[in-house]
Amino acid sequence: MWCGAFPYANLEIFLAVIINLDQERSRPPEAALDHLTSMVSADLTQVNEIILQRMESQVGLIPQLAGHIIAAGGKRLRPLLTLASARLCGYEGRQHLGLAASVEFIHTATLLHDDVVDDSGLRRGRAAANTLWGNKASVLVGDFLFSRAFQLMVASESMKVLDILSSASAVIAEGEVQQLLITNDPETSEAAYLDVVRAKTAKLFSAACRIGAVVAKRPEKEEEALESFGLNLGIAFQLVDDMLDYLAPSDTLGKTAGDDFREGKMTLPVILAYYRGSKTERQFWRRTLEDMEQKPSDLEKAVACMKRHSALDDTVERARHYAALACGALAVFPRGEMKEALLGVADFCVERAY
Amino acid sequence: MWCGAFPYANLEIFLAVIINLDQERSRPPEAALDHLTSMVSADLTQVNEIILQRMESQVGLIPQLAGHIIAAGGKRLRPLLTLASARLCGYEGRQHLGLAASVEFIHTATLLHDDVVDDSGLRRGRAAANTLWGNKASVLVGDFLFSRAFQLMVASESMKVLDILSSASAVIAEGEVQQLLITNDPETSEAAYLDVVRAKTAKLFSAACRIGAVVAKRPEKEEEALESFGLNLGIAFQLVDDMLDYLAPSDTLGKTAGDDFREGKMTLPVILAYYRGSKTERQFWRRTLEDMEQKPSDLEKAVACMKRHSALDDTVERARHYAALACGALAVFPRGEMKEALLGVADFCVERAY
Repeated sequence: MWCGAFPYANLEIFLAVIINLDQERSRPPEAALDHLTSMVSADLTQVNEIILQRMESQVGLIPQLAGHIIAAGGKRLRPLLTLASARLCGYEGRQHLGLAASVEFIHTATLLHDDVVDDSGLRRGRAAANTLWGNKASVLVGDFLFSRAFQLMVASESMKVLDILSSASAVIAEGEVQQLLITNDPETSEAAYLDVVRAKTAKLFSAACRIGAVVAKRPEKEEEALESFGLNLGIAFQLVDDMLDYLAPSDTLGKTAGDDFREGKMTLPVILAYYRGSKTERQFWRRTLEDMEQKPSDLEKAVACMKRHSALDDTVERARHYAALACGALAVFPRGEMKEALLGVADFCVERAY
Repeated sequence: MWCGAFPYANLEIFLAVIINLDQERSRPPEAALDHLTSMVSADLTQVNEIILQRMESQVGLIPQLAGHIIAAGGKRLRPLLTLASARLCGYEGRQHLGLAASVEFIHTATLLHDDVVDDSGLRRGRAAANTLWGNKASVLVGDFLFSRAFQLMVASESMKVLDILSSASAVIAEGEVQQLLITNDPETSEAAYLDVVRAKTAKLFSAACRIGAVVAKRPEKEEEALESFGLNLGIAFQLVDDMLDYLAPSDTLGKTAGDDFREGKMTLPVILAYYRGSKTERQFWRRTLEDMEQKPSDLEKAVACMKRHSALDDTVERARHYAALACGALAVFPRGEMKEALLGVADFCVERAY
């Protein structure tokens, strides 16, 4: 675990001021997520049952492959947000359960499709579904889960929910295509990268939160507050994810450090290091990420270069900004245990960087 | 064009008896499709406008790639069925236009995802989108179109339509996965193959037709009749498609003969030839389709083997059976120009074999 030069103590004060957080702060970051999970555990159990039930198919490969990735997912962060948002809005019905499962299915379908590779030999170091069953099976099972997601939305009988989630799906796909287009381009701007993050990641977070207010039939203002919370939380989450891709040891997060580097993905740590880099450093980035000529020692060099220019610290700094915006968005809701728990998740999204 | 030993004259009498068809029969098969197209041409123009409008995106690659495949599609058979079904039911509104576009988007997304290949070197002879832009772009643009399809359904504000089309999407995905599982397996039964055809192809035809009755708010009986018409028409269409894959010259249908063979796909002509084949012939099929060891002369040998066992004739014979069932299903509707036009399309699906 990397415990570098981040101002951990300052973060405490910073978040405490912004979100007036009075809960205990000395626990590990995962504790915030565990706390939220425990608050909606009865709901989550039912969501997991719906997930298991709806990924069934007479075609055995579907539950087999889907089970592999859904089990690997673990955290269930997105459906948790739907459950918690609905409860924050005082919802006492059951409509949010199927929708939380729907959100998880959209996420899983996206993961499966994101793992598809072209036969240019780029697939390295991943134990993704496509390495076990092939690209095509991954794509088609993703389609199945995506269809199941829509069936679950239809079962909710809310046109508003259908509108929000189908629009989100289109935006996610646009974001994924845009990400593909900026791959291998070290000249990508921070703004272009943030647009991709908003679309491919944060849009689903924001939709997952907003539909909690929709099922509870809360006023537009609360819908918008939850949407903004989700959007900013999603950006913070993705920024830290992109940072961890350069620093996480392979036994955390179920991912191997260096995946993004090996795929030539443009993420904020790279963008900052490239723009702040010397001529020689820029040549290094172009060789490794544009020309995709990578040597075994290059990942280590990349990280050193990032550290030299505070690219990793500043990526987390940006994440902290968005987490603060997320917390601020919840101001319309009165204080209470569920609100505190959601604020804790915003905290978790940044703190897991340490 | 192959003009073999099919009892063309008998087909005339056969269909004439079953469907009491009194229209001119001497015209080429495409004429029936052209006739239907001309009957709904004003609607179709609007559907094409919706398609163009809804495949737009700020991400330029999306309309570029989607346009490539949507323009290549040409016939617009599935949206035509929605338009014609709605009109057959006396519908005079506009809801069917967006839904017809939605059906075409689902079809296009399926095509894009069906073209994804694994990096096992199987991609030969295809000018598919993935050869131009890669697997990943094809998958993601497919996702975008799929999302757009759902947005168009949501815009129809009909929960019943959403239910029908989202369920159809799940079944299509199941069919595609099942097709993947029977690939390279010469022991595949005709029943297993037909299950795949019903799911991957016929389900969308049946949904496309059924929603025509739904928007027109016609009784369940008419919905079911149109669903049955579409289902059987879809099976007939796919059977002939699978036959043509062994016999069509490369300048028809926008496809190259032999694609299925080169991919080791199990289709009815192969299944019949395998089961009726000698020990030596079965060894040939196992070498070429199971072990995927193919020589340049093997496609010709495969066709000769099929002809020896009437596998191609009998595939069309099966198609004729399903086309007759399709026509029979329309019995609940009174005679009229639109009904005759739809019967003509059933005719087209078989006659295009010649």
